[in-house]
Amino acid sequence: MSDIAAYVDGLGLVDHHCHGVVSADLDLAGFEGLATESSWPSPFGGSNFDTPFGVAVRALCAPLLDLPKHSSGAAYVARRSELGPEEVNRRLLGATGIDTYIIETGVGGSELLGAAEIGAATGAAHREVHRLEVIAERLLEQVGGGDEFVTRLTDRLDESAAVAVGFKSVVAYRHGLDFDPARPGLADVRRAADAVVARRTDGARVRLTDETIIRHLLWEAVDRRRPLQFHVGYGDSDIDLYRCDPSRMTEFIRRTVGTGTAITLLHCYPFQREAAFLAQVYPHVYLDTGAAVNYTGFGSAQVVRESLELAPFNKVLFSTDAYGLPELYLCGSLLWRRAVTRIFSAWVDADEMGAGDAVRYLDLIASGNAQNVYADV
Amino acid sequence: MSDIAAYVDGLGLVDHHCHGVVSADLDLAGFEGLATESSWPSPFGGSNFDTPFGVAVRALCAPLLDLPKHSSGAAYVARRSELGPEEVNRRLLGATGIDTYIIETGVGGSELLGAAEIGAATGAAHREVHRLEVIAERLLEQVGGGDEFVTRLTDRLDESAAVAVGFKSVVAYRHGLDFDPARPGLADVRRAADAVVARRTDGARVRLTDETIIRHLLWEAVDRRRPLQFHVGYGDSDIDLYRCDPSRMTEFIRRTVGTGTAITLLHCYPFQREAAFLAQVYPHVYLDTGAAVNYTGFGSAQVVRESLELAPFNKVLFSTDAYGLPELYLCGSLLWRRAVTRIFSAWVDADEMGAGDAVRYLDLIASGNAQNVYADV
Amino acid sequence: MSDIAAYVDGLGLVDHHCHGVVSADLDLAGFEGLATESSWPSPFGGSNFDTPFGVAVRALCAPLLDLPKHSSGAAYVARRSELGPEEVNRRLLGATGIDTYIIETGVGGSELLGAAEIGAATGAAHREVHRLEVIAERLLEQVGGGDEFVTRLTDRLDESAAVAVGFKSVVAYRHGLDFDPARPGLADVRRAADAVVARRTDGARVRLTDETIIRHLLWEAVDRRRPLQFHVGYGDSDIDLYRCDPSRMTEFIRRTVGTGTAITLLHCYPFQREAAFLAQVYPHVYLDTGAAVNYTGFGSAQVVRESLELAPFNKVLFSTDAYGLPELYLCGSLLWRRAVTRIFSAWVDADEMGAGDAVRYLDLIASGNAQNVYADV
Repeated sequence: MSDIAAYVDGLGLVDHHCHGVVSADLDLAGFEGLATESSWPSPFGGSNFDTPFGVAVRALCAPLLDLPKHSSGAAYVARRSELGPEEVNRRLLGATGIDTYIIETGVGGSELLGAAEIGAATGAAHREVHRLEVIAERLLEQVGGGDEFVTRLTDRLDESAAVAVGFKSVVAYRHGLDFDPARPGLADVRRAADAVVARRTDGARVRLTDETIIRHLLWEAVDRRRPLQFHVGYGDSDIDLYRCDPSRMTEFIRRTVGTGTAITLLHCYPFQREAAFLAQVYPHVYLDTGAAVNYTGFGSAQVVRESLELAPFNKVLFSTDAYGLPELYLCGSLLWRRAVTRIFSAWVDADEMGAGDAVRYLDLIASGNAQNVYADV
Repeated sequence: MSDIAAYVDGLGLVDHHCHGVVSADLDLAGFEGLATESSWPSPFGGSNFDTPFGVAVRALCAPLLDLPKHSSGAAYVARRSELGPEEVNRRLLGATGIDTYIIETGVGGSELLGAAEIGAATGAAHREVHRLEVIAERLLEQVGGGDEFVTRLTDRLDESAAVAVGFKSVVAYRHGLDFDPARPGLADVRRAADAVVARRTDGARVRLTDETIIRHLLWEAVDRRRPLQFHVGYGDSDIDLYRCDPSRMTEFIRRTVGTGTAITLLHCYPFQREAAFLAQVYPHVYLDTGAAVNYTGFGSAQVVRESLELAPFNKVLFSTDAYGLPELYLCGSLLWRRAVTRIFSAWVDADEMGAGDAVRYLDLIASGNAQNVYADV
Repeated sequence: MSDIAAYVDGLGLVDHHCHGVVSADLDLAGFEGLATESSWPSPFGGSNFDTPFGVAVRALCAPLLDLPKHSSGAAYVARRSELGPEEVNRRLLGATGIDTYIIETGVGGSELLGAAEIGAATGAAHREVHRLEVIAERLLEQVGGGDEFVTRLTDRLDESAAVAVGFKSVVAYRHGLDFDPARPGLADVRRAADAVVARRTDGARVRLTDETIIRHLLWEAVDRRRPLQFHVGYGDSDIDLYRCDPSRMTEFIRRTVGTGTAITLLHCYPFQREAAFLAQVYPHVYLDTGAAVNYTGFGSAQVVRESLELAPFNKVLFSTDAYGLPELYLCGSLLWRRAVTRIFSAWVDADEMGAGDAVRYLDLIASGNAQNVYADV
């Protein structure tokens, strides 16, 4: 185990799907609010430090802030404040071994450090991915009607494609992955956008849930041949989980074979097996277990193991899906290293996989596959 | 491992969902009929002692009846008869370490020892949970029409709420968890009850499958702020398993946030991950792996492990879902102890979780969470 | 572990679901095309030797061709060619320990060695299973209309039942397992067949996707009391995975209890738990994890473990689902042996299962259950 473990510890990572980190100091409630996918506090006085992720933070991050392992949540947050967010970010991000951050910019605002700032703070490379629904929402707040929407969307997507290395869609929790796989007609898209414009309130944010418009976004993104990330499975309190099974979008996947656009399935929990099936069968499909690794804490090795049951080794990506907390970057990295160390060591120690193959596959998952999928990474 | 193991062995349990045990002697066929969720005998001469649960009975219960481990089913049942049901119940229930039984009274009749009798036999505390569909069925057998049903139901539920610590619904196998989340209008409920009354046969039992009436029961139960147990997943030959995925009732869960009513998801197999997701995201949702632990026998540690991947430690409950056989109480208890010993020992031994945290979380799952959720337990 | 391991190594197997092996020499592309369920090559220069199955081939098969473990794919295919297909088939099939091949003849043509040829090459017994959709397709290419189809189908199925030990359906990927459970009326079947005949092109193969006709086939097969195999879950690029959940055909299963026809659920990944649930509850349902064991490689033990969580030990079958490559027979056999060795050894070593029971259950899964289910095997 020691050889594989040492190799994994030294792996530089491409985090192909993450978000910014908060720049401000956080109190206990602020920290706990970012340490869960829930939108509500726990009853009966529970703490989000008493979750699989909370346990991981206290085991893995506390020592990096000079605290004993398993310190209490209160002690942890107090020490965090004492050091200040810049120092905490520096220490935690610095220990992730992430060389390249591919940051999805569609959620959160100026309270987050963006790609460039994280790059500056860590010395790592950074790229952007743009969220399709956000691009459309900003446009739907400005346009006079569906006709203008369709026309200007083309320009906006072209502009995005010029700077972003990929697009992301959250159709999973705006509609479900059981969307109609067909490209919608432009007349239908215009009509749907007209309806959104008619309903919108001046100055209020538009929240896009119209399935026709979202499908239009997906197909427009496919045209631009940028990798298209899909939120899959767990990761938001808005979702109906069974409708986030990626096999519900199989026909869309089938129709985009050969377009030159890669589809990357994000998080996938508890559908990592379904996602790996799609990655095996369809040449342009990739998967990661991002958010799931963080939120399953020291139970995450089984999740990673299942994602590797069926998937070819050149179809699996690394991500943290970190949002807000640098702890999500750190735990996402260390828990993933722990998981693949266990999995690959077991194979190599039993002489079921050659050590050279293990190293090659680990390189691919850590960074090589992402470098293949995303241009200029 | 020894410290955690010893601690787990000594844990007193609140079994938050179980049923009575049979008071009569059982022959081989009688025992085997209660040792499965199937309604049919196995072809080709198979025995329900040759199942994961049957293996567990022969390993864990046989020694308590002075038999060698792995005795045959025939020998086991013969020894059971020799000792007599009272002694068998005393020995097996006495070895469970269950301090409090929360007994759901909606299935089985006078052949079962009820809550008070189990309490008397074991010296343990006992509480009752009432099954909504049974309350409605008894009433539908008596009333003249929908109007009377709706009126008298209010009284019946109030009476139940005065003595029961919770309600249970089996909508999973009467309809599916994909029921309409909206509260039905009273006119619709009356009409539906009228139809049931019109169809009923004098003296015959009514079996409630009407979705409108069941939804009315659910919302009436929510009004009474008693924990509401839902059968989820595996556990009955009536079910269409995919319709028992708890994520299909997400919208109902969303609409009951903040009502003060806890929702407890029972058994959950093979949807323990979906259930744990809901328990993480929604503040009033809890889960257990009751029946699944028994029926997966020595494979149950993986099921428990999956239920602990995502769930906060203050959202997981212990139950046996035992029905009829005291063996289901004993195996449900010992298999659960074996599972959590393995899971928490591995974390503590690897210094991934502090021993103090482990003890705290084990206390919560064994009894503390149930004491929070159910009043007066 | 050593005793169980030795016992498992010596077990003779009935492979209750497999296909022929190719008789021709294969180049690298030819081999890789048969080493996946995908229909497309991998982008970015990936190789199907860098998949869980490819790793298993290089670990388990290479030594049987006098190569070092973990040899490259290119070296492996070169050595294969050097030895020639006959010798490769002889060596690999000879090392499987399969005593009886039950070969499904519905896919592939003269490029495959059939049942008799495999029997001759290996000295093993061999039986046939016929694919319902293929029987109907050949007939639909010949008949003048629906009336003739219905009449002649009866004869064709009788002829099949006289030589085949079972039937197989691929309704999973022609329609989905969510087919209507009711037996269709003959008038509807005739009308549906008329439509197929009206649409067909002279000389072109008919591909049957009509749900009414397929249901007719299923019920006709049930009448003939031959075991009826269903493709379930993973195993073809045509499928929408979520529609291949076997619990979607629960009502059909319910309606066929007591017909005397066994239903065997094939592969089942990732629905092995759902399949095992059905096998526990319904007396005529059986399952295997065939293709899944091969394609999950050294991750397969977990898949087998899950299939054994709930299923009675007399309801689980062995298969390889091998098609084309003798490597699929060899890996299917050795990976299954590895999995059950780990699972049963752990139980026996912990004194949770008696060694005598373990041996009895292993015999059942290896061959006894298949001998019960299939007549004359």
